[in-house]
Amino acid sequence: MARPKNDNFLRALLREPTDYTPLWLMRQAGRYLPEYCETRKRAGSFLNLCKSPSLACEVTLQPLARYDLDAAILFSDILTVPDAMGLGLYFADGEGPKFERPLREEWAINDLTAPDPWDHLRYVMDAVVEIRRALNGSVPLIGFSGSPFTLACYMVEGGGSDDFRTVKTMLYSRPDLLHKILAVNAEAVTAYLNAQIESGAQAVQIFDTWGGALSHAAYREFSLAYMQRVIAGLKKTHGGERIPCIVFTKGGGQWLEAIAESGCDAVGLDWTTDLGEARRRVGDRVALQGNFDPVALFASPEAVTKEATRILDSFGGGNTGHAFNLGHGINQHTPPENVAVLVDAVHGYKRK
Amino acid sequence: MARPKNDNFLRALLREPTDYTPLWLMRQAGRYLPEYCETRKRAGSFLNLCKSPSLACEVTLQPLARYDLDAAILFSDILTVPDAMGLGLYFADGEGPKFERPLREEWAINDLTAPDPWDHLRYVMDAVVEIRRALNGSVPLIGFSGSPFTLACYMVEGGGSDDFRTVKTMLYSRPDLLHKILAVNAEAVTAYLNAQIESGAQAVQIFDTWGGALSHAAYREFSLAYMQRVIAGLKKTHGGERIPCIVFTKGGGQWLEAIAESGCDAVGLDWTTDLGEARRRVGDRVALQGNFDPVALFASPEAVTKEATRILDSFGGGNTGHAFNLGHGINQHTPPENVAVLVDAVHGYKRK
Repeated sequence: MARPKNDNFLRALLREPTDYTPLWLMRQAGRYLPEYCETRKRAGSFLNLCKSPSLACEVTLQPLARYDLDAAILFSDILTVPDAMGLGLYFADGEGPKFERPLREEWAINDLTAPDPWDHLRYVMDAVVEIRRALNGSVPLIGFSGSPFTLACYMVEGGGSDDFRTVKTMLYSRPDLLHKILAVNAEAVTAYLNAQIESGAQAVQIFDTWGGALSHAAYREFSLAYMQRVIAGLKKTHGGERIPCIVFTKGGGQWLEAIAESGCDAVGLDWTTDLGEARRRVGDRVALQGNFDPVALFASPEAVTKEATRILDSFGGGNTGHAFNLGHGINQHTPPENVAVLVDAVHGYKRK
Repeated sequence: MARPKNDNFLRALLREPTDYTPLWLMRQAGRYLPEYCETRKRAGSFLNLCKSPSLACEVTLQPLARYDLDAAILFSDILTVPDAMGLGLYFADGEGPKFERPLREEWAINDLTAPDPWDHLRYVMDAVVEIRRALNGSVPLIGFSGSPFTLACYMVEGGGSDDFRTVKTMLYSRPDLLHKILAVNAEAVTAYLNAQIESGAQAVQIFDTWGGALSHAAYREFSLAYMQRVIAGLKKTHGGERIPCIVFTKGGGQWLEAIAESGCDAVGLDWTTDLGEARRRVGDRVALQGNFDPVALFASPEAVTKEATRILDSFGGGNTGHAFNLGHGINQHTPPENVAVLVDAVHGYKRK
């Protein structure tokens, strides 16, 4: 297996020289694109869309048809793993993801096991194969999973939460139970990402969306430790190529040094962290990914270009180790034409 | 004017030795207390409660009657200032604060002026006087205001927001307009806090609830710069006593060094920042306030004590410069008996 024709993104993650700063956008296949909404409607439901390899492939490719992006990311949901564990994922209208059977009882936690991804998550692997075939060696495909802790938040809360009261009460009062869940989640996520790699994912990202809701001490014990466990179990190469791994903890800017020691190749940053300062803090241990405020895409084209340039400037000289991205998923109300402005600004940037 | 009998809190903010680590809790007078709910009901509406000096005094004192807290904080709302500017604050049932006339048009921004606190916010000053009288020299009274940027968020969005799309679009596309609003807000907040100090507030806190939603660069330019302007204009003493000022930017842990240079006496920290690490970063330039995760109050009494002890330990040796607090306002569903456990844990802590 060879690298894709445009391998700038993979090179950036491995801190090799690149022709320009490559970029992709978290949630680049999503509701801000009318063609996505059309496919989503045709699918009947969001879960149908995720579970149909051909429809998942179709929406994965949509942003690449519009914009000159340097990577594709598998279209899927972060909660496929707990769904495969039997928790019963569903989407209530306008309410986000929910589980029919939240994980709160000790007996249910003791019964929890990691699903075989080749069995219960086969539809994801089929999508990866189909997307790789459709990409035809143009740009790399990123696989992904939620982090063990982020999955646990949804599993214990039974859905989204704004204070994580249930999972944090478990964390403080019954840390042993939460550790049991996290151990199973780490095993499941490792197997899931490895199956994606074997199916053709050329880089993987761990989305730790809720690790930033923890105290520093709890973050290390309940989120970072389990991501380290996952990373230690990941296939480092496939078909002779290195498979880089990105860790993105939203709100994790204060813990950058610790994240950089996790074994990952790159650290994703939200927009609150200064990229130049981050680079000074981690040196050349890891590449950095980020960190444009997704809401800045609502501004004028001139302002979008100015903000992108500020971020590229802040990363500083040299041309290795930076993959441009948003600091969080793209907002569903984003004007699609401003995404084109952003892509042009990043690719047109003259490095000093 | 002399210091209160229990002046441990003021001493902690001024980095003088204290008998023990003093504590108060953000939103300590609030919905988790049945007696508060009873008064709130009697008031008819939340705004009536804020605008009645005698009822505001009553609820301010309620948590002190229950718990051995080391400070009282004025009961009020952070949006009194924009309300006094004529934006028409109201509370829709279960929806949080809203403004009848959000600030979006250029003409309205040009017309914005800082209200005279002795005129339009007289009810706040009357409450301060009444609370000081009722406290009768027992513990200090903290006055407060929202930060210029946090007020601007509500003023431009017209209420709460989860992405701050409107105010950030202004920030990126028309920074000149946002700077105009912030200049007026800084003038208004300075006058408002000075009037509270003249009325009897013995310390003041600036709540920068939403500064943490900004990029590092935007935080300095649009939030911190205006808090610095406020602090520079504050009365440093009243009646011969120093009036310490606390800055609390939720999510501002990455910018601690910059906040510590703002001219404030103390920096409030949310629970994501390690207190020992924070102390190393700022040295003895400022005192630190915080930073117990408010959701940890849902845990068992043993876990509450353990977490409080961990935080006190992490601050490290010495007994100056730490005021214990939560990392955010207390959750309305908190079991009141766990607050007593927390107070005992902090006051009973044996410093090394």
